[in-house]
Amino acid sequence: MTATRTASRLADGREIIYFDDVSAGTPRVAQDTRPLEPFSSSSELRLDPLTREWVTVASHRQSRTFLPSAEDNPLAPTRPGHLTEVPESSYDVVVFENRFPSFSMSTGPVPPAVAGDGVLGDGGDGDGGSAGGSDDRSALVPRRPGRGRCEVVCFSSDAAQSFRELSQERVATIVQAWADRTTALSGMDGIEYVFPFENRGVEIGVTLTHPHGQIYGYPFIPPTAQRILDASLAHLAATGRVLYADLLAAEVAAGVRVVAANEHWTAFVPGAARWPVEVHLAPNAAVPDIPALSADQRAAFGPLYLDVLTRLDALYDKPLPYIAAWRQAPVRVGRDAWGLHLAVFSIRRAAEKLKYLAGSESGMGAFISDVVPEAVAARLREVGRS
Amino acid sequence: MTATRTASRLADGREIIYFDDVSAGTPRVAQDTRPLEPFSSSSELRLDPLTREWVTVASHRQSRTFLPSAEDNPLAPTRPGHLTEVPESSYDVVVFENRFPSFSMSTGPVPPAVAGDGVLGDGGDGDGGSAGGSDDRSALVPRRPGRGRCEVVCFSSDAAQSFRELSQERVATIVQAWADRTTALSGMDGIEYVFPFENRGVEIGVTLTHPHGQIYGYPFIPPTAQRILDASLAHLAATGRVLYADLLAAEVAAGVRVVAANEHWTAFVPGAARWPVEVHLAPNAAVPDIPALSADQRAAFGPLYLDVLTRLDALYDKPLPYIAAWRQAPVRVGRDAWGLHLAVFSIRRAAEKLKYLAGSESGMGAFISDVVPEAVAARLREVGRS
Repeated sequence: MTATRTASRLADGREIIYFDDVSAGTPRVAQDTRPLEPFSSSSELRLDPLTREWVTVASHRQSRTFLPSAEDNPLAPTRPGHLTEVPESSYDVVVFENRFPSFSMSTGPVPPAVAGDGVLGDGGDGDGGSAGGSDDRSALVPRRPGRGRCEVVCFSSDAAQSFRELSQERVATIVQAWADRTTALSGMDGIEYVFPFENRGVEIGVTLTHPHGQIYGYPFIPPTAQRILDASLAHLAATGRVLYADLLAAEVAAGVRVVAANEHWTAFVPGAARWPVEVHLAPNAAVPDIPALSADQRAAFGPLYLDVLTRLDALYDKPLPYIAAWRQAPVRVGRDAWGLHLAVFSIRRAAEKLKYLAGSESGMGAFISDVVPEAVAARLREVGRS
Repeated sequence: MTATRTASRLADGREIIYFDDVSAGTPRVAQDTRPLEPFSSSSELRLDPLTREWVTVASHRQSRTFLPSAEDNPLAPTRPGHLTEVPESSYDVVVFENRFPSFSMSTGPVPPAVAGDGVLGDGGDGDGGSAGGSDDRSALVPRRPGRGRCEVVCFSSDAAQSFRELSQERVATIVQAWADRTTALSGMDGIEYVFPFENRGVEIGVTLTHPHGQIYGYPFIPPTAQRILDASLAHLAATGRVLYADLLAAEVAAGVRVVAANEHWTAFVPGAARWPVEVHLAPNAAVPDIPALSADQRAAFGPLYLDVLTRLDALYDKPLPYIAAWRQAPVRVGRDAWGLHLAVFSIRRAAEKLKYLAGSESGMGAFISDVVPEAVAARLREVGRS
């Protein structure tokens, strides 16, 4: 069964799309009656010449909504007197363009650098530019508009629910929404990488506690994806095989780091995990991205993921702060070399201690882990038994 | 004037070295009388096959000292009844091997993987291995011993002082200690990169509030240094010049991001800064590392650094949490392409808000900044006036 998809617009022109679990549900016809200004944003990319990585400057995000009271929750359904980002009075899953986006297609040209600033590139429109394709090659810090797409995905209209508590049917609807949005964003001008993720927990800086994820459509291949791409292409050239498929097969054969599995998916702790808690979920048959998952693979994801999330919350008998990051193939390159997986990781290193990214991690990118991956896997298998 | 250097050993065999501001000071002869077991540690490196970056697993660090009371401060001088890591009853600057190191020369061979674990490399001794030089190429996750060196640098015997409050003489002593240790660690077997840094503030996970920094001697070139090396070598090949020197010259010419300067050093906000507060300090004449700094450069560092630290603490009228990271040339490669600099950065993005590394940064390595570098530089120039 497929969820019902209904697309509309918010008062400021942003797109909003409902995905409803039950196909025979109520029509989504409510209008956004808030007196919003037409939506616009400013965001620019600057290339760090020392690391050759794009940094995004989105200064309008300083004023984004920060831990609002339940009364002011912008992700709740609208009710009389409380107009929110979601005009309907109820919803199952809803996706809309972020009001405080890091990237937006409404971003205009980058303003010229001030006179005499020979460091920054001249800016300009930057149409069609890729990571290496800036027009101002002579500048040490080339700039481009932060043109891309940032979407919010609400998992439930119940502000108190967590992903772990959702129904299997709801997870299937969310997978459908992720697939729909990955296809849509992949087709947008200049988007090179689509990244669905969830930040969970105030410990990692979540500013809205309502259960939701986000989708970033980057106008470049982000650094981590670029490194995975490089390794995957090298492995394909050397062996003719998909690196991630080889890794998963080896993990399944070893068994020692496998946490749980079903017919179509396996969850394991990576052999070189860098976070105190880190689990990968991958389809047993490799695919490049979420839209490429078969119907059977989609149906089997929820049962395993909810099992894993339950184990994570059982580790310390309280909700674990986590980041869940879908690593999909880039939009245009390396698709035959890539294996889709979901990396779920946490900064909690003990019941009352967090891992901080200090000197070695933040200053040098070198991760020091306090825990042995095999021990974490054994513990996660164990907590599932209780 | 040069500080006095006195080397000794702690009860468990770890090295300790005093650097005293005044050359005619008290001889450092106190012995460590604690009943410590001979020092040993276990630490292993695992190569993440997806990013091809080394991850260090140092599980003995889970039990490291965590925010002790003033009574139990292990970095204080020893006094009757309170034996600490420092046997002397006073000190100026003292360096010793970390009791809970991420890397140590006492680390033994990596134990073999358990039978059937075809993911992990067989381990073994790993002598002389570099990032690409593991013996077990067939394993997807090669392993090596975490052989290297981790040192603690105490900046003052006064637990309540911060670096900003040190005297110019003391900063000169610290620079001498950094240079001494960089030279010493660079000469140790298998160390490829020497990284002096300071973590300041509980907000970034500091576990001991006593003013101190650390020095990591990595047995590989860490990821951020590797990327800077790649860019620097490419720039040298293309132009014949040092990338960082070109960057500094352009920043000085532009002026808009310069915070402060003196005859030998310049402090500026990088054009593509990724942190809400980020300042680079660099010598006006490029050198590869701290030992290569001239006497004049060394003497001129303290005045500018203390000025910058004072501005940082003035930003929000309270101590700013920060990481100060010395980016030196690697020990063996690219030294003629590299420009030494100190990167100081903070996660504080507003008086009551921190920047968290969530989905985009931790999951994809793509930094989203809320602040415009030119505005931060203007603000840092401004707070210096009051």
